[in-house]
Amino acid sequence: MKAKARAHANIALIKYWGKRDRRLNLPAVGSISLTLDALYTITSVQFDKNLSEDELILNGQMAARRETERITIFLNIVRHVSGIKHYARVSSKNNFPTAAGLASSASAFAALALAAATAADLSLSKKELSILARRGSGSAARSVFGGLVEMKRGSAKNGRDAFALQLAPPEYWDLRLLIAVTSESQKPIGSTKGMQLSKQTSPYYRGWVDGAKKDLKEMRNAVIEKDIEKMGELCEFSALKMHALAMSSNPGIIYWNGTTVEGIHTIRSLRQSGIPVWFTIDAGPQIKALCLSDAVKTVSETLQDISGVKRIIECRPGYDASLMEHSPE
Amino acid sequence: MKAKARAHANIALIKYWGKRDRRLNLPAVGSISLTLDALYTITSVQFDKNLSEDELILNGQMAARRETERITIFLNIVRHVSGIKHYARVSSKNNFPTAAGLASSASAFAALALAAATAADLSLSKKELSILARRGSGSAARSVFGGLVEMKRGSAKNGRDAFALQLAPPEYWDLRLLIAVTSESQKPIGSTKGMQLSKQTSPYYRGWVDGAKKDLKEMRNAVIEKDIEKMGELCEFSALKMHALAMSSNPGIIYWNGTTVEGIHTIRSLRQSGIPVWFTIDAGPQIKALCLSDAVKTVSETLQDISGVKRIIECRPGYDASLMEHSPE
Repeated sequence: MKAKARAHANIALIKYWGKRDRRLNLPAVGSISLTLDALYTITSVQFDKNLSEDELILNGQMAARRETERITIFLNIVRHVSGIKHYARVSSKNNFPTAAGLASSASAFAALALAAATAADLSLSKKELSILARRGSGSAARSVFGGLVEMKRGSAKNGRDAFALQLAPPEYWDLRLLIAVTSESQKPIGSTKGMQLSKQTSPYYRGWVDGAKKDLKEMRNAVIEKDIEKMGELCEFSALKMHALAMSSNPGIIYWNGTTVEGIHTIRSLRQSGIPVWFTIDAGPQIKALCLSDAVKTVSETLQDISGVKRIIECRPGYDASLMEHSPE
Repeated sequence: MKAKARAHANIALIKYWGKRDRRLNLPAVGSISLTLDALYTITSVQFDKNLSEDELILNGQMAARRETERITIFLNIVRHVSGIKHYARVSSKNNFPTAAGLASSASAFAALALAAATAADLSLSKKELSILARRGSGSAARSVFGGLVEMKRGSAKNGRDAFALQLAPPEYWDLRLLIAVTSESQKPIGSTKGMQLSKQTSPYYRGWVDGAKKDLKEMRNAVIEKDIEKMGELCEFSALKMHALAMSSNPGIIYWNGTTVEGIHTIRSLRQSGIPVWFTIDAGPQIKALCLSDAVKTVSETLQDISGVKRIIECRPGYDASLMEHSPE
């Protein structure tokens, strides 16, 4: 009744923003991501008949009620499917800042899904695991897989066709993502709330949803052809469209700080000077540079020199979520 | 055959972005602006039969060919209407940085329109002057008037119903606009080019155009009711939508620098702490704070403290474009 799993964070190159169903966490658009080796969550789950409620230890500390409730909602799905009636003791640890736009909910819910399903003796395919992880966090569906991953929007009401699949394994391509950390604070407005506000108030929401299909198709081709130029262009276009959508909500949501914008200009200047590098930004202020391995040194040193950049995290393509321990008894 | 006029710059509170006709400078959306007393252009025009081409002295220096050509295109309209065949000697001086997102083309073409029309002995109504100024620069149509001004989008193909009119005179309301200058460099991409790129490539262009009518209507009401809260909210919403539109172009246009974003966050923090102040930003990196006179001291001191803010220009509502000299001979 106990299991421990590890899952890596991922960064969307074609962004996910907006839900077509809030309860089932069904995305309004598909997305394509890169799984990151350097950022991960390790989570253990133990179902225990002596517990009177679920317990969550997050990064070594008893979690807040709000966080524990989110875990309980997720574990209720696992309990419902497996028939287990017990509460669980969950311990989860990130090796990087939580809720700061570094995709901690992606790795956290992918690790939780694998650990909880295993502890509950559910035998799930990767696709089923991806669907389960999605219930915890939309981006977690992608962290089930390593390398380059596509999340399908799906069209079924019950979400059975909204799952992730691997486009290319980690060894496929020597991609690098350099994360310039500009703040370790939690973001002022969470992704779920931000997405809801955009859907309800932005005049650009329809344009965002309508444009996604083309972006996904072009990105799939860029992956197949290992076309880093095209991948980079699409990456910036999708990131700016996502932030533009958030900004055009009412009131406008601005996840950037000053250093984020300086990072954008720096990466574009580097590119003009001949270094093949592109940016992406998630729902947070960190600036992320996409390049191939031979540009890492120059890009890293240049980003480090921007006033306000605290440190650089270098990421390579990461692996599938994996089981670390399993004690059936 | 000589005249000299002064016109003030203006800042759009409901933004203009996108043209429905490039040659006639017909806007895709209407706009509402505040004319600014502290920023102005003084322009003199003298038609002279001894000249073999138009001459432009800009801020005391012979202008570049590109700039002189833009003036010639404008003067050709005046020559066509008035029947004058001579070239002109034009001297224009701004009391503030040129082409840095401080609306220098608005005050410049409003002053030029008034000086050139007067020198050419055209007797134009304010409405006709506004239509003429629009041919030089869309925002110049608004600088013909002082106070709060609305530019009509119009629907006629020839632009006869695309002109500005005054919503309220400068004395109507004790508004202040504080401009925090973050850079005096020229912007990397001009407004006309930026608008064209947005129209051609942004998936949000339709949403932008469709939303403008409601913004204009609500802003007119806010002016009538002297509702600074509502005016401020609309002001931020319109500015963020405009920048979101530019950012969602392909490639994305980013007029902001790091200080611009820090300025946004600072103004929002000030507001959370009870100071009634809102921001707007034009096609450039300057951050502009809208407030009433009693908030000026606090807002000004707080903005001045942001690293990267070079100086603050305090503006009150400015007056109509006006004639300074007229020598018919």
